[in-house]
Amino acid sequence: MAGRLAEQKKKGTVGEHFEKLREMAGRVFDLASASDLLSWDMQTYMPPGGADGRAFAMATLASLAHELFVRDDFGETLEAAESEVKDLDPDSDEAGIVARLRRDFDKTRRVPSDWVAVSLRTVGLAFNAWVAARQASDFAAFQPHMEKVLGVKRSYVSFFEPYDSPYDPLLDDYEPGLKLARVREIFGELREVQIPLVQAISERSDAVDDSFLRLPYDEQAQWDFGLDVIRDLGYDFERGRQDKAPHPFSTALNRGDVRITNRVSPNHFGSALFGSMHEAGHAIYSQGIAPALDRIPSLSGSTLEGAHDASLGVQESQSRMLENLVGRSRAFWTAYYPRLQAVFPEQLGDVEVDTFYRAINKVARSLIRVEADEATYNLHLLLRFEIEADLIEGNLAVADLPEAWNSKMEEYLGITPPDDRRGVLQDIHWSIGLFGYFPTYTIGNIISVQLWQKLNAELPDLEAQISRGNFTELVGWLHENVHRHGGKYEPMDLLKRITGEELNAKPYLEYLTGKYSEIYGLS
Amino acid sequence: MAGRLAEQKKKGTVGEHFEKLREMAGRVFDLASASDLLSWDMQTYMPPGGADGRAFAMATLASLAHELFVRDDFGETLEAAESEVKDLDPDSDEAGIVARLRRDFDKTRRVPSDWVAVSLRTVGLAFNAWVAARQASDFAAFQPHMEKVLGVKRSYVSFFEPYDSPYDPLLDDYEPGLKLARVREIFGELREVQIPLVQAISERSDAVDDSFLRLPYDEQAQWDFGLDVIRDLGYDFERGRQDKAPHPFSTALNRGDVRITNRVSPNHFGSALFGSMHEAGHAIYSQGIAPALDRIPSLSGSTLEGAHDASLGVQESQSRMLENLVGRSRAFWTAYYPRLQAVFPEQLGDVEVDTFYRAINKVARSLIRVEADEATYNLHLLLRFEIEADLIEGNLAVADLPEAWNSKMEEYLGITPPDDRRGVLQDIHWSIGLFGYFPTYTIGNIISVQLWQKLNAELPDLEAQISRGNFTELVGWLHENVHRHGGKYEPMDLLKRITGEELNAKPYLEYLTGKYSEIYGLS
Repeated sequence: MAGRLAEQKKKGTVGEHFEKLREMAGRVFDLASASDLLSWDMQTYMPPGGADGRAFAMATLASLAHELFVRDDFGETLEAAESEVKDLDPDSDEAGIVARLRRDFDKTRRVPSDWVAVSLRTVGLAFNAWVAARQASDFAAFQPHMEKVLGVKRSYVSFFEPYDSPYDPLLDDYEPGLKLARVREIFGELREVQIPLVQAISERSDAVDDSFLRLPYDEQAQWDFGLDVIRDLGYDFERGRQDKAPHPFSTALNRGDVRITNRVSPNHFGSALFGSMHEAGHAIYSQGIAPALDRIPSLSGSTLEGAHDASLGVQESQSRMLENLVGRSRAFWTAYYPRLQAVFPEQLGDVEVDTFYRAINKVARSLIRVEADEATYNLHLLLRFEIEADLIEGNLAVADLPEAWNSKMEEYLGITPPDDRRGVLQDIHWSIGLFGYFPTYTIGNIISVQLWQKLNAELPDLEAQISRGNFTELVGWLHENVHRHGGKYEPMDLLKRITGEELNAKPYLEYLTGKYSEIYGLS
Repeated sequence: MAGRLAEQKKKGTVGEHFEKLREMAGRVFDLASASDLLSWDMQTYMPPGGADGRAFAMATLASLAHELFVRDDFGETLEAAESEVKDLDPDSDEAGIVARLRRDFDKTRRVPSDWVAVSLRTVGLAFNAWVAARQASDFAAFQPHMEKVLGVKRSYVSFFEPYDSPYDPLLDDYEPGLKLARVREIFGELREVQIPLVQAISERSDAVDDSFLRLPYDEQAQWDFGLDVIRDLGYDFERGRQDKAPHPFSTALNRGDVRITNRVSPNHFGSALFGSMHEAGHAIYSQGIAPALDRIPSLSGSTLEGAHDASLGVQESQSRMLENLVGRSRAFWTAYYPRLQAVFPEQLGDVEVDTFYRAINKVARSLIRVEADEATYNLHLLLRFEIEADLIEGNLAVADLPEAWNSKMEEYLGITPPDDRRGVLQDIHWSIGLFGYFPTYTIGNIISVQLWQKLNAELPDLEAQISRGNFTELVGWLHENVHRHGGKYEPMDLLKRITGEELNAKPYLEYLTGKYSEIYGLS
């Protein structure tokens, strides 16, 4: 048997059922990938009149992907493929593909097609209501929709009984294996360190001046500088592109077509560049997944998606690493600051690199998550996590959401939103049913530093390389250890495989405390 | 019964089966519409690395659309809906939808899913081979693929026995109801007039000077001028957009999202503007289809498509009307020439409007169809039609194609291609399996003039309106008589309904002879 398998493997196939499974999964992937393009287009080039038709098309693709995936013959083929791979090395791509499809199949089978249709309709309406409510800064107009979305999520959770917390099945969709109890512990640790850290920084806010970042910066020059940087980082433009969109995001249609979007602020240097670096972190990950894993869909938040990665947290570890651990480091600017000064001599010609480094790391207690710096970012997520867990566990009524939001903003960041638009209505997530999603941003921050420690241990020359603008070994290491595996391993298994450790917030907190103590001269 | 139907109709529905049919058809439409976006993107923004994944995705969407459409329960629902509409006015949208779906369903049911898969694979490979062969100007490299495509088309034809000619089922896919015998007659009439006309013109080729059209013309200014013109014509940019692509085309994703593409030549005024006007003709048609016909797919050339129009010929009648009957007319330039001179004073400041009018209508015996003028265009199509009919009927071997092409070029246009790239390999059509498609361009020319006659009879002031840049009544008439009906009527029925006449080449030939006799001073 082992001999036959080895022979089949040599020929590039482990058996006919496995090949049939690949083909069936490939069709689901194709639908998900097409839907990804529809979504990308909706946010980049679609004319306003296309909205209704697009909603229909996306709903049809999503429900068809679901129908194809849960068919009995898919299950039968999966089972047959499992016997074909059972003697293979569990680390092989084939065994990994079958295991991953099994996990997603079993989860998806629990969800009735009816629920998928109702959910798509509910979030479609809720999203539209959210857009209008945010515009009008009127939470009350959104409240009934938010209640309906919550009802839909509660039904979803009920398909996964038993659980420790109803929040667990939601979390598991984005960060497989992680539980509410563990996330609470992690946020507890962060809270204990980050709230006093931000408080101490705010008392020394004069220590950092970033006014020169808020001069006029030519939009095209900013855009082009960012393109040069991410090309150097290893983003392959033969298999990707950057377009303008209101919000930066990354879309992996397939390994050969991984796009990013970005926006430019004409009066603020930084948001465009760091947006590009962040999204390039996601995109380089998706471009680096092994070809053997092509056309395998993956389940993310009850939706079958084209992207085949370990989890949102692992994704975010890659984007935050390039954005922050690289892009906001002294080493990086040792290489790039002279180039940047050459592009913007009027704005930066007289500014020292150290002054610039401190400016791009300035901490500000702001209202808006997506504009938050490294020190305050997790506090925005802490607030969202606590609120959504309370909502799902039934400890908070939707009507009380704005008050809960505002009082936590005051408690964690010392500021109160003047209106709902800049408060509880700022994020799209809940309107489109993304509960359990916010914590993955924080998990990503934590993983990024755990990986960074390991990287530096294995590549002691890394900082010097970065300060010469050389990212080859950095990205090579990420490809080898993270990217190529795609979604073959559970995220926490992948982390352990690479670092030998469990998820651990300490390295992250040490990094944060060290960096900001130095910048702000804290004791 | 009639009472119940009238009541249902008042409520906006004719019955539950009809509604179910709409929903089932809607899902097929959604797949086709998504596929249209994938195709648009492939030709506009897709990075090169995306080609493989895109081919998979498009094949999956096409085969799923086919599978959903031919399902037994689709047929059962269609039958039930037929009883619901049987007492309705046959001109009602509901009756039209059911009749159209019946026609397409019966045709599609004859085609096995296996054939669809084989066909998609064959043309996928043939297209790639054609791209390489054209680049290398090497027909021999393409020949085996061409033979395979032809084999696939022959199998397709066999599903539709009996027929008068094996070419008929292919033609019927694009121009329902039209037969080879009738097309032969039409091309015979054209041939008799157009070959001597072009010959006579070529003897007076010095009569028209268009050298000033080949000066440098700023690309952005050309682009913007075209946008202004098509906005005036009635193309709604809230429901559309124009992007750059190597070849101009129009894509109707749905009534709210109808896009066009175009290209600009920096050293030739005309191709960009007339490209925009041509594609706007298609797009205004699709934007004008009645909302009641939303989300109804239609069969075009064995593929289910989102666009819901009467036929390719009727489509082409709209684009050729705006491009030629409007855009290359004296009346149009009475309104627009002063504006154009203001944009390009250096190039056109000293050129009289009549000189300009003659220049944009200059006739040249050229090698390339897509660059052909009105007088020679049909001769390019005559050649293609005769060759493809011979191929399908078995009177010509693929190996003899280049020779047949070149000798017909010499016979009809008096020139011989120096290589296959500029000869038999110039068009994409055969590589992607489009046989029976070329004649629809000519049918479109003919219909455009039949409609134009009727238009002028009903709007005697039309020319004066156009010379004031006023297209409201023109486009209103087209909306009312052509656009809003979508694919509700068979193309020849629609033509008869509007003009009271059958397809008739005479008005077209009179128009052509009159126009060019005047320009070239022929007797």
